[in-house]
Amino acid sequence: MTAPTLEFWYEFASTYSYPAAMRVEDVARDLGVRVEWRPFLLGPLFLEQQGLHDSPFNVVKEKGDYMWRDLQRVCEEQGLPLEKPSQFPRNSLLPARLALVGAEQGWIAAFSRAVYEAEFAHDQDISDPAVLRPLLARAGADPEAALEAAGSEPVKARLKAHVEDAKARGLFGAPSFLTSDGELFWGNDRLEQAVQWAARSALTDA
Amino acid sequence: MTAPTLEFWYEFASTYSYPAAMRVEDVARDLGVRVEWRPFLLGPLFLEQQGLHDSPFNVVKEKGDYMWRDLQRVCEEQGLPLEKPSQFPRNSLLPARLALVGAEQGWIAAFSRAVYEAEFAHDQDISDPAVLRPLLARAGADPEAALEAAGSEPVKARLKAHVEDAKARGLFGAPSFLTSDGELFWGNDRLEQAVQWAARSALTDA
Repeated sequence: MTAPTLEFWYEFASTYSYPAAMRVEDVARDLGVRVEWRPFLLGPLFLEQQGLHDSPFNVVKEKGDYMWRDLQRVCEEQGLPLEKPSQFPRNSLLPARLALVGAEQGWIAAFSRAVYEAEFAHDQDISDPAVLRPLLARAGADPEAALEAAGSEPVKARLKAHVEDAKARGLFGAPSFLTSDGELFWGNDRLEQAVQWAARSALTDA
Repeated sequence: MTAPTLEFWYEFASTYSYPAAMRVEDVARDLGVRVEWRPFLLGPLFLEQQGLHDSPFNVVKEKGDYMWRDLQRVCEEQGLPLEKPSQFPRNSLLPARLALVGAEQGWIAAFSRAVYEAEFAHDQDISDPAVLRPLLARAGADPEAALEAAGSEPVKARLKAHVEDAKARGLFGAPSFLTSDGELFWGNDRLEQAVQWAARSALTDA
């Protein structure tokens, strides 16, 4: 029996993806579930589905005010540092492409966590190669080779395909979780439930 | 020391207010917290804050599809029956006014739960006095007197004041919870946390 898998769909500009990314591997490991990291971009979905050119948290002030306070509570509970980014949302295109390179080379999880820390704990600009280089090195990648690969056509095409796949499978926000039997869970609050679902449905298949 | 209180802000047309309304008293009682039921209307907030003339779950199809599936999972976990209403959202003006009458007469909680059951377990039209009369009677009210009071100017004005109060205090959705120290929690998923916050802040005050 192969290990059950859970697709973890995340966007580097998404606030609630931060606490989810920091613990998804731990929660999944406890239940024997393998995590497939799926970076994507929310911008095209927000535009197509909601006609939005900005984060809903900027468009609706009340939602944004609440989200920052709630995120603070969530991070405190999880023991995560949080510094509200001086720019929100950050441009997440380059780190998303880099993560796809990391998916092939085995450092996607470590790199993704490092990007979230840089963004939400240290208020760094995650679209800046100078910020990303040390994060790549720390994750075990060759920074220059990874940056070059991230600019290649196959990687660009793969990210576009991820976005199309997200749309086709009903995603509208991040983080989201998809099980192998097609169950969708949205939000950091659903992480545990999604992992349990993945573990349980694998037992039923066996 | 008086019991700590938690304001429970709910909208009868709101789907996630249903599982929240059905258990808020039980969760609060376990921690010695008193619940103040605050019916309000989301329509004016959606219009003013988001420019929406309909539920966001109808405006954004992907969100709506997900919500109905997620609500089903939530209700299953809580052991609550769910039948997707044939009309969504229902007009909630009359039950909201009736609930305010019930707040004065001590039957608001029982009546509110009965309305949610009628709407989400039995697909009944909660704007219809013929549907509401037996619910009122079951909650211990005099149905005709309550319906007459619900149409009075003071009750209408009180509901408007609730909506204004909700706006002024940063609400943008339902269910929402407000503690006496001004902490806002949004969503059925935050019910337990809100009750814990209310219980804890009362201890700190004491």
